[in-house]
Amino acid sequence: MREKIKIIGFSGSLRKGSFNTAALVAAQQLCSDAAEIEIYDISDFPPFNQDHDQAPPENVTKLKAAIRAADAVIFSSPEYNYSVPGHLKNVIDWASRPYGDSAWDGKPALIMGASPGAIGTARMQYHLRQTMVFLNMFPLNRPEIMINNCAQKFGESGELTDEATRNHIKKAVAALVEEVRLRKN
Amino acid sequence: MREKIKIIGFSGSLRKGSFNTAALVAAQQLCSDAAEIEIYDISDFPPFNQDHDQAPPENVTKLKAAIRAADAVIFSSPEYNYSVPGHLKNVIDWASRPYGDSAWDGKPALIMGASPGAIGTARMQYHLRQTMVFLNMFPLNRPEIMINNCAQKFGESGELTDEATRNHIKKAVAALVEEVRLRKN
Amino acid sequence: MREKIKIIGFSGSLRKGSFNTAALVAAQQLCSDAAEIEIYDISDFPPFNQDHDQAPPENVTKLKAAIRAADAVIFSSPEYNYSVPGHLKNVIDWASRPYGDSAWDGKPALIMGASPGAIGTARMQYHLRQTMVFLNMFPLNRPEIMINNCAQKFGESGELTDEATRNHIKKAVAALVEEVRLRKN
Amino acid sequence: MREKIKIIGFSGSLRKGSFNTAALVAAQQLCSDAAEIEIYDISDFPPFNQDHDQAPPENVTKLKAAIRAADAVIFSSPEYNYSVPGHLKNVIDWASRPYGDSAWDGKPALIMGASPGAIGTARMQYHLRQTMVFLNMFPLNRPEIMINNCAQKFGESGELTDEATRNHIKKAVAALVEEVRLRKN
Repeated sequence: MREKIKIIGFSGSLRKGSFNTAALVAAQQLCSDAAEIEIYDISDFPPFNQDHDQAPPENVTKLKAAIRAADAVIFSSPEYNYSVPGHLKNVIDWASRPYGDSAWDGKPALIMGASPGAIGTARMQYHLRQTMVFLNMFPLNRPEIMINNCAQKFGESGELTDEATRNHIKKAVAALVEEVRLRKN
Repeated sequence: MREKIKIIGFSGSLRKGSFNTAALVAAQQLCSDAAEIEIYDISDFPPFNQDHDQAPPENVTKLKAAIRAADAVIFSSPEYNYSVPGHLKNVIDWASRPYGDSAWDGKPALIMGASPGAIGTARMQYHLRQTMVFLNMFPLNRPEIMINNCAQKFGESGELTDEATRNHIKKAVAALVEEVRLRKN
Repeated sequence: MREKIKIIGFSGSLRKGSFNTAALVAAQQLCSDAAEIEIYDISDFPPFNQDHDQAPPENVTKLKAAIRAADAVIFSSPEYNYSVPGHLKNVIDWASRPYGDSAWDGKPALIMGASPGAIGTARMQYHLRQTMVFLNMFPLNRPEIMINNCAQKFGESGELTDEATRNHIKKAVAALVEEVRLRKN
Repeated sequence: MREKIKIIGFSGSLRKGSFNTAALVAAQQLCSDAAEIEIYDISDFPPFNQDHDQAPPENVTKLKAAIRAADAVIFSSPEYNYSVPGHLKNVIDWASRPYGDSAWDGKPALIMGASPGAIGTARMQYHLRQTMVFLNMFPLNRPEIMINNCAQKFGESGELTDEATRNHIKKAVAALVEEVRLRKN
C-alpha cells in the first residue's frame, strides 16, 4: 500500500460560510484514501513588509514550515476584482520570502474556485498560475476546478452535494497525487 | 487658472526606503502646479473578510472617503511574485466592497512601478489593469511608467535624480490630469 | 438629430455559421439608429512578415484605411486555446504596422464573445484588452458581452433570439457611441 | 549513452534576419549533444477556419505529424502588440484541432523571446503559457529566456555572440531534456 501524500490547503475566503472552504472540506473527505489534506488558517497575517522579511512574524515561520512539510498545495479561492484575493496573495508573498528562501519551491499544486456566478473564478486562476511560474510551482493543467453557480451545489450545512463536482474534485486530487509521485521519483 | 486636481497615491511597498514610495514623492513635487497628490498610508489593514464588509473597520471607511474625494488615483508598486503585492490588492479589495459601493468607480488612474531589475514591473501592471476593468477605472494607456534598474535612478536620500524618468513622470501626471478633465466634462 | 457614428466590426471566426458573426449582424440591426456597423471580411490575410510591413499587401492598405475611417471598433470573437484566435490577432498585427503608423490608435472599442460553453470567452477578452494597451485603444469596461451557451440564444438562421442578450448588446453599443462622443469633444 | 531527444522549434518571426530564428539556430548548435532541434517553417499557413478543421490543408496534416514525432517544443518569438504574434498563434490553433485531436497534448516546452528593447517579450510569454494550460503542455518554469537588447547580442551573420545568453540557452535546453525524461518514465 502506498503512503498517503500530505497536502496543505488554503482557502481564499475568510467568510464563515465560505463555499471555497467548503470545497476544501469536501476534498478532504473525498480523498482521504490517497491524501491527507490540512486546511491552514490564514486569517491573521499582517501586510508583507520587506523590512521584516529576514525576521518575519512567528506565524510566517510556522506557515513556511507547514508548506515545506507538505507534498503539494491546494488553493481554493473566490475571485476578487478579476484577480486573486489580496489577503491570500499576501500570504503567498510572505511564504515566498526572503529571496532564495521560498517555501513554495517545487510544489505541485491544484487550483479550485467556487463562485456564485456563471463565469466563475477563471480570471483569478490564471493570475495565480502566473505567480506560480516565479514560485516554481507545478499547477495541474487538468482538470481545472471551476465550481460555478455554487450556491446550488452545496447543502445547507456546507456539504458538497453535486455529484459531478464531487467526481471532478476526486479526479483532480488523484491527478495531484500522480504529479507528486512523478516529481518525487 | 485651472483648479488643481486631487490625486490619491498608493505605494505597493511598505519598506521604509521604498523606491516606489520615492517615485510617488517625486510625482508630488514634480507636478505640484497641476495636481495635489496625497500619499495614503496602507500599512495597517486587516485581511479582507466578507463577513465584515457591511460594517468594515474604521480605517476602511476613511480610506473609501479619501478615494471618493480624489479625482484620480496613482498606484506605484513593485511586482511581487509576478503579480500585484497582496497587501495592496487587499486594500483595493476592501475599498471595492460591499458590492455596489466601491470607492474606485469611474476613477482615472496611473500605474507606476519601480524595480531594481531589468524587466521591471510589467507583470504586476497588467494584472492591476485587469482588476481595473471590474472596478470600472480608467488607467492611462500611455505613458506607462516602468522604472527599471531603479537603484541608479534615485539618490541616497530617495530623491529621483534621473532626468528622463522625471520627465516621464511629469508627462504621465499631465496625461492623468487630461483624462480627469475629459471625463468631467 | 445627432449623426450616426461609424463602427467597423471584426468577427474572430471564419466559420460560415459563426455565432460571433451572427452577434455582429445582430448588433448591426439592433443599433441602426445610432450607428452604422460594417462587418469587415478578414478571411484572406497572409501571415504578418515585418520584411513587408513598409510595402504591405494591398488588402492590408485597404484594411487600414477602413479602420481609420471608422469612429470605433467591435471585435466579436470566440476563444481559441484560452486566447485570441491567431488569424484575428494576425490582422490586428498587420494593421498596427509599420511602427508609428498603426490604424488602431485612439479608437474606442467593444469586445463581444459568443461561446457554446458555460465559461465563455473571458480568457480571450483579457488578452485582447492587454493588446489594446499597446495599440492605445479604449475598450469599454462595461458592459462586457460574454454570450455563453450561445447555441440556445440564436435561431436556426442565425438571428439572435435571446431577449436579454439583445438588450445587453444594445446597451453596449450605446456605451460605445458615448465613448466616441466623449473622446471627440 | 542516452539517446538524443527530438525537439521541434518554431520562430514567431518570419523576418529574414530574425533574432528569434537566430536564437533557435544557436540552440540547435549549442545543444547538439543532447538534442536534435528541427526548425519548422510556418510561413505559409492560411487563416484557421473551423469549417475545414476535419479536412485541413495538407501542410497542417504534415505539421501535426511533425509535432507528434517530437519529444518537446521550443517557441522562440518576438512580442507583437503585447501578445503572441498572430500568425504563430494561428499555427498553434491549426495544430490543436479538430477538438480531441490536438498534436500539442502532453509536450514539454521551452519559450524563448528576443527583443531589441529593454523589457522584452514577457507579455508574449505569459499569454503563450496560458494557451499551454488548455493545450496540456508543460512549459518550463525556469530558466525563462528573455533576450533583451538583442541587437548587441548577435553578430552580423546572426550568430549568438553573448556568452551569458549562450549559457542560459544551454541550461534551458538541458532543463527541457530533463522534463522530457521525467515525463517519459
